[in-house]
Amino acid sequence: MKIPYGGDYNPEQWPAEVWDEDYRLFDAAHVDTLTVGVFTWGLTQPSHDEYDFSVLDRIIAKAEHGGRRICLATGTGAHPAWLAAEHPEVTRVDFEGRRHRFGQRHNSCPSSPVYRRLSTEVARRIAQRYAGNPAIIAWHVGNEYGGACYCPLCADGFRDWLRERYSSLERLNEAWYTRFWSHTFTDWAQVEPPSALTEHWRGPDHTAFQSITLDYLRFMSDAMLANFRDEKAAIRSADPSTPVTTNFMGLYRPIDYHRWAEHLDFASWDNYPPDDQSPARMALAHDLMRGLKDGAPFWLMEQTPSVTACRDVNPLKRPGVMRLWSWQAVAHGADAVLFFQMRAGRGASEKYHGAVIGHSGRSDTRVFREVAALGAELEALGPVTLGARTPAKVALLFDWDSWWALEISDGPSRLVRYLDVVTTYHKALWTLGVDLDVAPVTAPLTDYDVVVAPALHMIKGDLADRLSAVAARGGSVVTTFLSGRVDENDNAFLTDVPGPLAPLMGVRVDEWDARDNLYVNPVSINSSTYPAQLVFELVIPQGAEVIGTYTGDFYAGTAAITRNTYGKGHAWYVGTALDQAGVTSVIRSVLAPHDLLGSFAALPDVETATRVAPDGSRFLFLLNHGPSTVDLPAINGVNVLTRAAPATALDPNDVLIVELS
Amino acid sequence: MKIPYGGDYNPEQWPAEVWDEDYRLFDAAHVDTLTVGVFTWGLTQPSHDEYDFSVLDRIIAKAEHGGRRICLATGTGAHPAWLAAEHPEVTRVDFEGRRHRFGQRHNSCPSSPVYRRLSTEVARRIAQRYAGNPAIIAWHVGNEYGGACYCPLCADGFRDWLRERYSSLERLNEAWYTRFWSHTFTDWAQVEPPSALTEHWRGPDHTAFQSITLDYLRFMSDAMLANFRDEKAAIRSADPSTPVTTNFMGLYRPIDYHRWAEHLDFASWDNYPPDDQSPARMALAHDLMRGLKDGAPFWLMEQTPSVTACRDVNPLKRPGVMRLWSWQAVAHGADAVLFFQMRAGRGASEKYHGAVIGHSGRSDTRVFREVAALGAELEALGPVTLGARTPAKVALLFDWDSWWALEISDGPSRLVRYLDVVTTYHKALWTLGVDLDVAPVTAPLTDYDVVVAPALHMIKGDLADRLSAVAARGGSVVTTFLSGRVDENDNAFLTDVPGPLAPLMGVRVDEWDARDNLYVNPVSINSSTYPAQLVFELVIPQGAEVIGTYTGDFYAGTAAITRNTYGKGHAWYVGTALDQAGVTSVIRSVLAPHDLLGSFAALPDVETATRVAPDGSRFLFLLNHGPSTVDLPAINGVNVLTRAAPATALDPNDVLIVELS
Amino acid sequence: MKIPYGGDYNPEQWPAEVWDEDYRLFDAAHVDTLTVGVFTWGLTQPSHDEYDFSVLDRIIAKAEHGGRRICLATGTGAHPAWLAAEHPEVTRVDFEGRRHRFGQRHNSCPSSPVYRRLSTEVARRIAQRYAGNPAIIAWHVGNEYGGACYCPLCADGFRDWLRERYSSLERLNEAWYTRFWSHTFTDWAQVEPPSALTEHWRGPDHTAFQSITLDYLRFMSDAMLANFRDEKAAIRSADPSTPVTTNFMGLYRPIDYHRWAEHLDFASWDNYPPDDQSPARMALAHDLMRGLKDGAPFWLMEQTPSVTACRDVNPLKRPGVMRLWSWQAVAHGADAVLFFQMRAGRGASEKYHGAVIGHSGRSDTRVFREVAALGAELEALGPVTLGARTPAKVALLFDWDSWWALEISDGPSRLVRYLDVVTTYHKALWTLGVDLDVAPVTAPLTDYDVVVAPALHMIKGDLADRLSAVAARGGSVVTTFLSGRVDENDNAFLTDVPGPLAPLMGVRVDEWDARDNLYVNPVSINSSTYPAQLVFELVIPQGAEVIGTYTGDFYAGTAAITRNTYGKGHAWYVGTALDQAGVTSVIRSVLAPHDLLGSFAALPDVETATRVAPDGSRFLFLLNHGPSTVDLPAINGVNVLTRAAPATALDPNDVLIVELS
Repeated sequence: MKIPYGGDYNPEQWPAEVWDEDYRLFDAAHVDTLTVGVFTWGLTQPSHDEYDFSVLDRIIAKAEHGGRRICLATGTGAHPAWLAAEHPEVTRVDFEGRRHRFGQRHNSCPSSPVYRRLSTEVARRIAQRYAGNPAIIAWHVGNEYGGACYCPLCADGFRDWLRERYSSLERLNEAWYTRFWSHTFTDWAQVEPPSALTEHWRGPDHTAFQSITLDYLRFMSDAMLANFRDEKAAIRSADPSTPVTTNFMGLYRPIDYHRWAEHLDFASWDNYPPDDQSPARMALAHDLMRGLKDGAPFWLMEQTPSVTACRDVNPLKRPGVMRLWSWQAVAHGADAVLFFQMRAGRGASEKYHGAVIGHSGRSDTRVFREVAALGAELEALGPVTLGARTPAKVALLFDWDSWWALEISDGPSRLVRYLDVVTTYHKALWTLGVDLDVAPVTAPLTDYDVVVAPALHMIKGDLADRLSAVAARGGSVVTTFLSGRVDENDNAFLTDVPGPLAPLMGVRVDEWDARDNLYVNPVSINSSTYPAQLVFELVIPQGAEVIGTYTGDFYAGTAAITRNTYGKGHAWYVGTALDQAGVTSVIRSVLAPHDLLGSFAALPDVETATRVAPDGSRFLFLLNHGPSTVDLPAINGVNVLTRAAPATALDPNDVLIVELS
Repeated sequence: MKIPYGGDYNPEQWPAEVWDEDYRLFDAAHVDTLTVGVFTWGLTQPSHDEYDFSVLDRIIAKAEHGGRRICLATGTGAHPAWLAAEHPEVTRVDFEGRRHRFGQRHNSCPSSPVYRRLSTEVARRIAQRYAGNPAIIAWHVGNEYGGACYCPLCADGFRDWLRERYSSLERLNEAWYTRFWSHTFTDWAQVEPPSALTEHWRGPDHTAFQSITLDYLRFMSDAMLANFRDEKAAIRSADPSTPVTTNFMGLYRPIDYHRWAEHLDFASWDNYPPDDQSPARMALAHDLMRGLKDGAPFWLMEQTPSVTACRDVNPLKRPGVMRLWSWQAVAHGADAVLFFQMRAGRGASEKYHGAVIGHSGRSDTRVFREVAALGAELEALGPVTLGARTPAKVALLFDWDSWWALEISDGPSRLVRYLDVVTTYHKALWTLGVDLDVAPVTAPLTDYDVVVAPALHMIKGDLADRLSAVAARGGSVVTTFLSGRVDENDNAFLTDVPGPLAPLMGVRVDEWDARDNLYVNPVSINSSTYPAQLVFELVIPQGAEVIGTYTGDFYAGTAAITRNTYGKGHAWYVGTALDQAGVTSVIRSVLAPHDLLGSFAALPDVETATRVAPDGSRFLFLLNHGPSTVDLPAINGVNVLTRAAPATALDPNDVLIVELS
Repeated sequence: MKIPYGGDYNPEQWPAEVWDEDYRLFDAAHVDTLTVGVFTWGLTQPSHDEYDFSVLDRIIAKAEHGGRRICLATGTGAHPAWLAAEHPEVTRVDFEGRRHRFGQRHNSCPSSPVYRRLSTEVARRIAQRYAGNPAIIAWHVGNEYGGACYCPLCADGFRDWLRERYSSLERLNEAWYTRFWSHTFTDWAQVEPPSALTEHWRGPDHTAFQSITLDYLRFMSDAMLANFRDEKAAIRSADPSTPVTTNFMGLYRPIDYHRWAEHLDFASWDNYPPDDQSPARMALAHDLMRGLKDGAPFWLMEQTPSVTACRDVNPLKRPGVMRLWSWQAVAHGADAVLFFQMRAGRGASEKYHGAVIGHSGRSDTRVFREVAALGAELEALGPVTLGARTPAKVALLFDWDSWWALEISDGPSRLVRYLDVVTTYHKALWTLGVDLDVAPVTAPLTDYDVVVAPALHMIKGDLADRLSAVAARGGSVVTTFLSGRVDENDNAFLTDVPGPLAPLMGVRVDEWDARDNLYVNPVSINSSTYPAQLVFELVIPQGAEVIGTYTGDFYAGTAAITRNTYGKGHAWYVGTALDQAGVTSVIRSVLAPHDLLGSFAALPDVETATRVAPDGSRFLFLLNHGPSTVDLPAINGVNVLTRAAPATALDPNDVLIVELS
């Protein structure tokens, strides 16, 4: 066993002679794992009453014959043309109220009975046919679930979901605050999906009723989860044990991956960063994915070896970058490194998407050479990191409900984006070299010394108590402006801001200002000042100590940042959107007393991560994302790729993996 | 009697114990007036055949029991969910042709017979039930009428409206110039509402047929007026005398408030300025509202005590600003000062809208303290300003038809916006301290020394004659580029530009240039030059004297600004979009011979306004919108709030109200 | 015979007394040609069963009575209101899937049987009635064909078109690469027009299946061509010889004018440049239009004498510019100079569009005077340039398929626009004073010394062989980045980039980078460097000589521009988007060995063009587009307008036409 290496492979698009050439090149590149069948529904079920596995049989036979491992997809990443033609209701109705017809992918209404029945059936038949094949190491259901549907079937599904959640219209009306704007519902049938035709006025984030929109987001995530569960159940009916997954998309808003996580046997995701300037953001996404299954390793299911195609501008991964980012995934918990895709398609919208093998079929390209070289390295690494976990004393809370609630809110500011706040706090931790877990708000917090909860807009369940307990036993809790504002129905707490967090934070906020992104009110912390923008909460200490103060406007000199002593620990409140340096300064002060600053925090371009294998071996990953060679201190251990002593310098884009002694 | 003070109050959203607390705080804040019931349709008519006034009864009983005054709404600001479900045709079809379903507010098709019947019925029943209650000092119909509908019922309504207007298709075809692009209508049924599906190509302002779009704007304004009139008539059937109003929105394009004005017993409006930098713009809106009823006082029906919620960015009113702006409303003719709203809602889209009482119910917040302090001041003021009027020798003409025609025109420039031109001319007058009326083009002009008519694109009726008469008797008339271009059907005059104004202006315009907003052609006036942009009319004097000339391009040295002697007076023509300083310079020259410059014109941040009470008392308001304390000259009179002599300095955001001796 | 002068005339919009005045002014302006009837369908067919030619009879009688020439339109530029009301299917369904109703123009579904039957019938009746009238010198069908329809009738038409093209679903599936994303079509009826409801995700350029969208673009162009051919056939049934045209729009993407060209008797087009800074772009459009009929003269069917109306900003043509641009048209092959329009309309969306006669009917305006002066000049010129052709040794290839394919492609960059690349290469040639043909990719290339093929994304048929032959016999071929990428079905070639051009170019491209428009990687050519942007192909010479190299990024020092010796000639490959100076530098190097640099290339603002009349007379046109007078060398010949010796200086906006001796 070793880290599976390879990726999406679509030989059904090619004649047989190309298949032979492919396998020659797979050998050359040390490719041992192929994901097949992701979009084969139309191929395996060419009409309503006909299933044809002949091509898939040949694909699998060829793959297993070479001793490779297979990640076998159910093929439901897109429905077939005949299905849309025969059953128009399997297509989606969009936010604008328009019924779509056949096209694209991710095109199925999650509530359509026909779609649910037939997608389940094709999954069942594939599982029945191929279950037991030892080459198959994982099942891949669907593909990048997402989007939304607003059709009448989904409207009915939403009403059923609401009946389940609220039991009565009285409770629904109360949760949705429907006395506002004469919205009281007197029959379930009156409830409409919130869309451009009903509650929304400028787009998906601008709604007259936040609670309705929030529930629809929850419902739609659950509706697609039901699709996944349908297929997984079908697989399980034939194969009781091979793990089942679907490929997630990291920081993807429409799907609450935390609610999905328990239904996957392992997490996997596709890493297509929006640019090549964001190693911290990728680290956040990796950690979020690792956090889905309580820290268990995940698969990097897709990445491009070179370029994407769907962006306005698709930059090329520079030499070494594909390797660097692959190892970054492993450093953060990946137990597989896979590409999209093995051979570049000839036509349609991914024609220019990068691939291990390009249109000319060459093996003497830079990209192929780098893929092959990484393949050799992974082979050299062998099994040692498989199953390894990250020891973390710091948790960053991430919450889809807060993300949704914050961004669909009318007021105080549309300019505050949840990910902007979260990535700033995460980057502070990342820069400071901290191993951290990105945890759901439902996670036990008992093992953490520090819990950072940026923009925790919604407080659900016993979260306030659990956060208080962290501080009470000597830990530190950090939260920010716009936290503690609403309950799980998006209704404001009828207490001082920050609501249930107020006792922990020892502050109260009566007023807040919002300004456009040209306005800056610097915040003074000790002798430094840091720009703050967008939202300015006027923090009134109720026992907390003032750490930072505004320097401008009528509230100059009043508190912007506070620290409250709570039990044996502390609670920090940051009442405005500080810039990165300001946040990093605050986080440094939070971490320091806990002795949690990373050993390499002085090297800002060098990312570090630790994994501990099931046998107790500890691996330290160092990755140089910067443009210059950096000197490293001596590290006690052995370079696991070379079995030599660790080097004392690390080149740009280079990686050092040390098994610590 | 005194200025009503209080605002929108929605106790139906709260349990009874909160009501008690509300009234305790109302007392503390000197709140004497509550607007109730604005969105209660669903509450008072929970189903088609059921009316239930129990909650409204309790609300009114509680309000009147405290001796407060009530502004009672008919509750039709939004229709109930059951109505949309039972009668889908009560919802609107939008400009894109999409039938909406239940959601938001302002959601009723104005032409729907069911909507008209049921909204009238609910108004009638409320009036019957509560008429005669002495606490009720006004009826509030609907809420912020606006938007538009393009459904088949409105299409029929439009055709009826056209039959009424044009009598025959021949006259309609002539008015609409339908030989252009083969548009001749041979049956009324062929006429379609102008929308994205018919005449429009890039949005509501881009139409192939301006005259059709213009008539639809007029029709839609009239259609909603009919809704208001329906409800008012229902009220009048039970209550012959209590005044009836609806809350307007100031500078709001879709509704021609001048056509509505005669049907309201008094005007009222909601002041939510787009930013906190525009006291002149608010003054313009106040004056426009006062001008609706020929100078009679209006109500400030809504303003926020602190923040709005629906904007991308919702800034906080700084200390003193809410007071300053409230007094500005009174200075310009308000006889009521009301807030939206008394207690902040918990949920939905106005959850973060500011309120007198916030989510925590505190009375020790800055906002509450300022509300209470203003309440005490208004109590101290007493009745003295009620019914007072503004004596004005200057009129600024404002015309929805010109607004619409100018902004839906193809050519010369989409960058010219009616309000930009109007606000520039108004701000010149405001800066120069002039008391002015904002008048409809139908107003008698006989009492004015100066009439300013910016961007008077359309000339209707005898307007040119009335303007000429102003000059003939010694007054001054000012107009600008893009004036006098079209008749009431938006057809060009077949004479020299500026059409019927040409004889008065003594100029002719054969050509005009339009340039993007990066291009500047400075205009020379005496020894100064002022930037001019967007549109450059090549003004050819036909008797007029040249006042300003272009300095650039092939027409350098030719006339941009002229003054024509006409009878005993003058007519000024400004052929391009001068910057604010240029316009102020021109207006200063216009006003000076009439001795109309304000006494405080040298203090640019200090706004002044005069009101004369029915008993002849004269009140001078001074408001400091600037950042610094200013010295004032001695003013003969008494400070009406303190009964002391007027101070000789005015702090930022401070107000001085002097009863002149 | 002389150059027809005049333009669109719509007297049906005016009473008879205006007609008399019009003709008085036509005489004054030397107007001898009128285009009439363009939007008269509703006038000539006021209802389904009624044709009425009385107005058109009077129009034609009045025109021919004065001895003027007539370009007679069939009137189908817009369908009548009654037709849309009776047959809703004649209106279009837009890209968003919305059925339109009556409005605007260009509003007919090209596939509607009713529309096709009735538009053909009205053309047939007009031809029958007026054929044989010697005043009629041309037939004008439709007007500015364009737009697109996505209705069910077009869907059926598309399926028919596909059956014709592909014969079988197997071939269609192969061409469209439908194994991707499970898109295999098993029934023709499953094929949908690619729209916002099917394959498109962000607009008309963002499609999941490029080949489907590409075929729909081809189909839609063909569908409208069928409309033109219908009407032309109807005309031909009554008039066997008078030439038939329709007015094109130059660089207009939706219609493949090359596929239309053979069906027109002569080309004509409407020149409304997007700004007044682009004489080269107008020259390109003129040359493209001339290239449609293999170099035969075309008509300038429309231009404004002064301003447009439909733009956001509509600048005025400065003095002399209308004359300069009119002569530019003649210089590039126009045998007619016509305006839109003769008299300004009173109403609707072209009310402010410039006209020879304005709303006031004056003849003493600058615009009228310039029109009259040009009329006199054209009269003085007489017939000498009629039928003249441009001798060119340089061809610029222009290809709608490459335009479409490039701009609907996912990857490498949405920022690369076909016209940007083409206009840069054209402007280099234009600046260097080269007479050139803008040729379709199907044109014989045997007469050219230099062929420039920018962004030749798609290679069809024997094009690669014909280009190779140019080089083989000693010519030069130039192509650029993103050329040679796809076959006619938009499938990538399975060979090295640039595909079939690779042997000719002697290079191979394995990788390319794309960056946003802030990033610049300078390219070094000899001792100069030129900015390059957007796309950077890493060019690997396979025999070619390196001409320019990148100076930045990891590929610094590698080839960006190459020249391959091929047979007796050369092939140039430019692998990135150089700035204008860089491209001009390359083109200068290409032209120099062929001695093709223009004689006046040192005068960058002076445009030159040569035309050779049927009798062998050679005319040299010089046009000064710059702001300064330039000195000219002595030219042997005679100024054809003055019959004097050519001047030795040329003022701004001035023109010199020399009959060379």
